[in-house]
Amino acid sequence: MTATSSRNPQGARPVVPGAGLLRPLTLAEVGVRDGFWGRRQKVNGEVTLDHALSWMERVGWVDNFRAVAAGRMRGERGGREFSDSEIYKLMEAMAWEVGRSRNVQTEAALRALTSTVGAAQGPDGYLNTAFGQPGQPARYSDLEWGHELYCYGHLIQAGVARARVTGADELVEIARRAADHVCREFGPGANEGMCGHPEIEMALVELARLTGEARYLDQAAVFVQRRGHQRLADIPLGRAYFQDDVPVRAATVLRGHAVRALYLASGAVDVAVETGDAGLLAAVERQWEATVARRTYLTGGMGSHHEGEAFGDDFVLPPDRAYSETCAAVASVMLSWRLLLATGNPRYADLIERTLYNVLATSTAPDGRAFFYTNTLYRRHAGPVPPAAEMNPRPESGLRAPWFAVSCCPTNIARLFASLAGYLATADDTGIQLHQYASCDIHTRLGDGATVGLAMRTGYPDHAAVSVEVTESRGQPWSLSLRVPGWADSGAILVDPTGARRPVGAGTVTVTHRFAVGDRVSLELPIRARWVRPDPRIDAIRGTVAVERGPLVLCLESVDLPAGRHVGEVRVDASTDPTEANGQVRVTGELVKVSDEPWPYAGTDHDTVSSTPERVEVPLLPYYAWATRGPSTMRVWLPEHTRTNKKETGSKE
Amino acid sequence: MTATSSRNPQGARPVVPGAGLLRPLTLAEVGVRDGFWGRRQKVNGEVTLDHALSWMERVGWVDNFRAVAAGRMRGERGGREFSDSEIYKLMEAMAWEVGRSRNVQTEAALRALTSTVGAAQGPDGYLNTAFGQPGQPARYSDLEWGHELYCYGHLIQAGVARARVTGADELVEIARRAADHVCREFGPGANEGMCGHPEIEMALVELARLTGEARYLDQAAVFVQRRGHQRLADIPLGRAYFQDDVPVRAATVLRGHAVRALYLASGAVDVAVETGDAGLLAAVERQWEATVARRTYLTGGMGSHHEGEAFGDDFVLPPDRAYSETCAAVASVMLSWRLLLATGNPRYADLIERTLYNVLATSTAPDGRAFFYTNTLYRRHAGPVPPAAEMNPRPESGLRAPWFAVSCCPTNIARLFASLAGYLATADDTGIQLHQYASCDIHTRLGDGATVGLAMRTGYPDHAAVSVEVTESRGQPWSLSLRVPGWADSGAILVDPTGARRPVGAGTVTVTHRFAVGDRVSLELPIRARWVRPDPRIDAIRGTVAVERGPLVLCLESVDLPAGRHVGEVRVDASTDPTEANGQVRVTGELVKVSDEPWPYAGTDHDTVSSTPERVEVPLLPYYAWATRGPSTMRVWLPEHTRTNKKETGSKE
Repeated sequence: MTATSSRNPQGARPVVPGAGLLRPLTLAEVGVRDGFWGRRQKVNGEVTLDHALSWMERVGWVDNFRAVAAGRMRGERGGREFSDSEIYKLMEAMAWEVGRSRNVQTEAALRALTSTVGAAQGPDGYLNTAFGQPGQPARYSDLEWGHELYCYGHLIQAGVARARVTGADELVEIARRAADHVCREFGPGANEGMCGHPEIEMALVELARLTGEARYLDQAAVFVQRRGHQRLADIPLGRAYFQDDVPVRAATVLRGHAVRALYLASGAVDVAVETGDAGLLAAVERQWEATVARRTYLTGGMGSHHEGEAFGDDFVLPPDRAYSETCAAVASVMLSWRLLLATGNPRYADLIERTLYNVLATSTAPDGRAFFYTNTLYRRHAGPVPPAAEMNPRPESGLRAPWFAVSCCPTNIARLFASLAGYLATADDTGIQLHQYASCDIHTRLGDGATVGLAMRTGYPDHAAVSVEVTESRGQPWSLSLRVPGWADSGAILVDPTGARRPVGAGTVTVTHRFAVGDRVSLELPIRARWVRPDPRIDAIRGTVAVERGPLVLCLESVDLPAGRHVGEVRVDASTDPTEANGQVRVTGELVKVSDEPWPYAGTDHDTVSSTPERVEVPLLPYYAWATRGPSTMRVWLPEHTRTNKKETGSKE
Repeated sequence: MTATSSRNPQGARPVVPGAGLLRPLTLAEVGVRDGFWGRRQKVNGEVTLDHALSWMERVGWVDNFRAVAAGRMRGERGGREFSDSEIYKLMEAMAWEVGRSRNVQTEAALRALTSTVGAAQGPDGYLNTAFGQPGQPARYSDLEWGHELYCYGHLIQAGVARARVTGADELVEIARRAADHVCREFGPGANEGMCGHPEIEMALVELARLTGEARYLDQAAVFVQRRGHQRLADIPLGRAYFQDDVPVRAATVLRGHAVRALYLASGAVDVAVETGDAGLLAAVERQWEATVARRTYLTGGMGSHHEGEAFGDDFVLPPDRAYSETCAAVASVMLSWRLLLATGNPRYADLIERTLYNVLATSTAPDGRAFFYTNTLYRRHAGPVPPAAEMNPRPESGLRAPWFAVSCCPTNIARLFASLAGYLATADDTGIQLHQYASCDIHTRLGDGATVGLAMRTGYPDHAAVSVEVTESRGQPWSLSLRVPGWADSGAILVDPTGARRPVGAGTVTVTHRFAVGDRVSLELPIRARWVRPDPRIDAIRGTVAVERGPLVLCLESVDLPAGRHVGEVRVDASTDPTEANGQVRVTGELVKVSDEPWPYAGTDHDTVSSTPERVEVPLLPYYAWATRGPSTMRVWLPEHTRTNKKETGSKE
């Protein structure tokens, strides 16, 4: 099985655009070694996939398919109306994992699931266990909430992954039958509706890319075009929830339900790229820019509100009520990756990096058996430990939970982690572009057919040095590009094959050279703890600072404070740089007790500091590593111990 | 019709406790004159009641009763499952309004509604238009969300109001039949459930007070007792939503859905007072203290989150996403009033004052035909004008909306405004207590049977002087008590009948005197604009200040800024006192433009101020008066123009 076998001509990679600046590499072309991501991929493949499957068997989500196939489904069923999609996302993850690891048990499990799912498909291609059976609502009777097309989207993505990794098989056929059914049912002149939850758009484009059949692309374009014209109901959350308030082409920012918004934008990019619709592509680029400038958390997380799982208004980014859903982070990576391939702009890779290290690495527990669904930036209460044997009824949990009543996130992460090698590097006619730093081996062909190989070695994100050694090259000139992250704007040093060192700013740095085997390009990044301040328009964190180190956002966790103290009692001194010793970042500040008053608003300044302020030096840890030492409170944005009171204000005049 | 007629022995007043420190006065004993509240009561009686009735006729909520009575209800119906309760709240408002104004049209409308409602009642007392008819869910099949007992609660409250104002009539009988049905269906040994929405508890206690029948009180006590033992489903919002997480007696703070929490607490006080349960009363007092100290907005508003319409955690009080539902403010007044009657603690009257002026006066438009459902403290976008002819589909609206898909607030305000005279003053054996300042005439009997009369005259809240003249007294010594509001702690002056002036602090000031007709007691309050600062634990408003004047919270509205400027661009100088001239409060500050950056977090200080800061003097207006000049942005908490950056921080070390 190779990346260019006749059975999978596109190669095993998540997105295969027909146009664009950069060509994504396949899982066969990029081999991730042990390291930050390699370890997580291994846990994902060896633990999380089984974990997800056993939960879904246990709670009846797989059995729904068996019940439909056996004609014994009678209305009531286990799981929410979209639970089928969890099976499909797991199948997609398994398909990628087979490409990554050749795990034969995963292959067998995927085949078994494929049979189970396929048996539930109707002769006309319809496939959903929540609609159309006796006692269930009729097919397509609830487009706002029914998620039928959304589920097809995930089924089709699983089929596309399978085809790209392994070649056509039963899963691919199931997906095609479903897609054909959708084109018949929702094509022009038929049902002119669309799904409340975007997702099928990008799936249909990917299927068009796989099969070369334009009707799938046309249908995707129709779905993108239909949205924003108030076809869906005006629900209490408003039509923005579904992105049905403004056409994609006219929108200026992402809004409403974050996962819906990001999936839709991803699908719109796919449509734009395949149809050469520069206006549509530019519209999504503008939306991305506005969203990143005004509606994104320091972690890269998106979604400010629990209500509606939604983006907030500009600069509404409360840390404590951050929703920052794990699925939104997955979707954000999908969107940024598509935009990166289309445009080559390294800012998209910057956001991918931030999101990977600070949301996606955070969500999954080190053992791969528990997850955060929401990723708050300020945990005010040491939450109870979620029971190991029960589904978490709510998206929020104090510690990572093994499964959720709505369990979209674990399978979404699983499919991303399994295919992560596909997001690290690209090629074009002139060379290779490295977008993310991880120890890996890369072998590919350039536009002229020349094979080239690279060995990237790094202790990133903990360590500053990235070394890239050429392992294959015919000595012709070609270009190696590296992304210098936005956070490393001052202080990054590039060492080229001649040994010359030069400072490089944020963006893309390219070395063009007649590379020989053994040639080396190194990047030294200024990885040290640094203070970060928010835009003053983000009201919810006015007067606070955070610490980053390399691509990592750090946080303060109560288990590192004196017993009984709460992270809310720390005021830091940001006039002093954080210190680092033995891999431990520390900041200085004060522990304060605010006096309790019967009414929390007063004409004079509050007594914010205890009479003998307690100077402390507190350790910070990477945000991704919090909540692994039992229940705790945690905070990313730390108030400065500067007080504003009348006296001090006056003295500045 | 008098307050002591034989047909309504309890007198027309909202709460008639069988025990407690203070005796509430009746609508017949307190006559509110023109003034801040007199004007609002007039608009309420002459406009809002008709407005509400015509909307409910138009959207079918009244017709639901006709359909049930005629046996033509078939599943589908207009309105949410709790829409019956809106009719009942309107009927309660009408009952009080008849007591207040003797309006014969209101009396006729109430009688007509009574016939309509009564015709839909089953022979066993069951009454609900959303359950039990063909095609509808079975009775009591959805206690979490069905609101059947909640609706009875409002029906019973309407019946009690009617009985206290007018005496027994058909409405009172309907309410009693419903209450008897509830006691049979939910008494010990029968259905051991309870309603997802507390409300019936206080209604049953009030019915017990009216009728003297202990079984209603017993049933109320049972409902209070049942709650907090996880009898209701564990919904995604958590059992705290229903207050079913912790027993009332054990809870330490109000939490979950704010209106539910406040209604439950009100019912618990009623049960505690009537059963002499000091422990239960003390528990609710503690919850009130903790809630006011940590979970209440400057306006008195309660409910921090749109999601679940819920209280936030301690000190989670975001101004922009404040829910601060109008109904929660009504419920807060109901709770505080009960606690005031039980304990005499003036802090309860302080909160009532704050809530009346800053939430309830805000909600209703001056013309009485439009309402805020939520009462945000920071309106970021100039919202669209709600259409006059359509129900607002969402609780949030940029300007006040004429009606809502869930329209609990307008009828709730209507019943409070109609009965407002009952919340101003009390009596006990020794004298009269004035809790709120409004021009009114009071006549009552003291414990010894002596009749006394007072004429209170004031331009409050705009003007500082409150004058109380004795209009009836037999010359015996008795006591007149006045509340000195918490905000007036320094600067209030009492002038007693001898003309002696003395400073008085916050709390209750009492003048005991052999009052003669013509004697006068005056209070001069320090009504001037003042800065207010938040507890530093309220993260969402760190670094901001607000202005209050007397009991009024002020705000900044964009219509008072140079064209095109947003309230978010104002930074105020709180080192200078606000100025007042011609009834206009002004503060000085700067208009800033924050530079737009592609990523809103930076290692260095943001350029927070335009290169040539624009000094401005901006007018503030009472919060209750905002949004009457077209769409606008509005803000209560204003950032100070002090900047914290490394340099400044350093200079303070």
